[in-house]
Amino acid sequence: MTYCVGLKLDAGIVMMSDTRTNAGLDNISRFRKMFNWNDPGERVLVACCAGNLSITQGVLSRINAAIARSQDDERVETILNAQTLFRSAQLFGDAMRDVQARHRETLQAQGAGADASILLAGQRKDGEMRLYLIYSAGNFIEATPDTPFLQIGEHKYGKPILDRVITPETPLDQALKAVFLSMDSTLRSNLSVGMPLDLTVIRADELDFAVQRRIEAEDEDFSAISRGWADAIREAFETLPSVNGDGR
Amino acid sequence: MTYCVGLKLDAGIVMMSDTRTNAGLDNISRFRKMFNWNDPGERVLVACCAGNLSITQGVLSRINAAIARSQDDERVETILNAQTLFRSAQLFGDAMRDVQARHRETLQAQGAGADASILLAGQRKDGEMRLYLIYSAGNFIEATPDTPFLQIGEHKYGKPILDRVITPETPLDQALKAVFLSMDSTLRSNLSVGMPLDLTVIRADELDFAVQRRIEAEDEDFSAISRGWADAIREAFETLPSVNGDGR
Repeated sequence: MTYCVGLKLDAGIVMMSDTRTNAGLDNISRFRKMFNWNDPGERVLVACCAGNLSITQGVLSRINAAIARSQDDERVETILNAQTLFRSAQLFGDAMRDVQARHRETLQAQGAGADASILLAGQRKDGEMRLYLIYSAGNFIEATPDTPFLQIGEHKYGKPILDRVITPETPLDQALKAVFLSMDSTLRSNLSVGMPLDLTVIRADELDFAVQRRIEAEDEDFSAISRGWADAIREAFETLPSVNGDGR
Repeated sequence: MTYCVGLKLDAGIVMMSDTRTNAGLDNISRFRKMFNWNDPGERVLVACCAGNLSITQGVLSRINAAIARSQDDERVETILNAQTLFRSAQLFGDAMRDVQARHRETLQAQGAGADASILLAGQRKDGEMRLYLIYSAGNFIEATPDTPFLQIGEHKYGKPILDRVITPETPLDQALKAVFLSMDSTLRSNLSVGMPLDLTVIRADELDFAVQRRIEAEDEDFSAISRGWADAIREAFETLPSVNGDGR
């Protein structure tokens, strides 16, 4: 499995993913699921992938092949030269549809799943920040102020903390804490999501990456947050009033 | 959907369920999912159901019909007179298999799910406390000191808090808090789980119910825990050290 979460806040974009993949329970590997593209001052993009790895790798190959072709022929449309971020999301959706058309039927005939999903976030010069979730069918939704975060993969364990603290006004340092905790809860409750983690932060209107960081198991920040939260939760739990257990 | 959780602790058994069922998103009703049986001083049992409601109601009908028949004919084996709790779990499993055999094929042919699961906990005189999870196939597992809680239905949102605080040694008042919080997180994150809640507490070796309580939306204990936890989480969150966001 996978857990990826993307936040689109007034202050910027935060995206985090794990790196664990499994083909069956006994075949576990590490694959990067987060990918970055930038043209500093012009455009910055980050994507995270969940689902069938051959499908998402196929999508990324198509996306990157177009970028490579565009160096020789600038008429080739790519996620880096598309008119809008919306159009970049469409290009991801188109690539998803192509790959699904090629493999879905055969995969399903063999009992394997072809589902995949992709978070795509970024900003272009003179545009707004955007955060999209692209589905297996190539369609997509966009995060809005009502729902400033989107999750893919094993999303349930890490949702309560986001529901509690994330609003569009959340500052980036608080958002980073929330994303760390969301991932921490998921790692604790689900073995199929695993370290190391990848983190990308894009500040609003900077049109470049503020943070691109791999967080290893022994990372001090992550360990401190994880331990601090475990202690704080236990303390908060103990100071809560007891429930009347006698049925009154 | 449904969320039910059962804990088997050294101090006793705690079981909680919600009451929301839905046949499609636009057909939502309230059904009791928790059922109690007792023969004070001899035996006490509590069950919670998740999954296809016609299936679980069918199972309960068979269980209760046997109890009714046993009043006239004491040779009828029931969950209340079975030699062991293990045998009571088998009787649930047998009932589940019967109902599945009757309905599963037709349900699946019409695209509906026939899956269902049941938590069964209790104690008989001269026996240990037991907590079982009975599956659609009629097989079952038992909670052990390594895993002192079992969940059915929409279990993921409420698992992190249980993972953090529940051990076999957890006292009952603390366990009640944890179960309230586990349900609170689930209610907040998933609309298909809803108030009111049902709560049963059985203290070790008392062979009767200590608490049987319906918790309505306006319940003071639950509201106090829910509000107190929301405040405590927010405070704990704010006092956590900030994450270094500059990538170092």
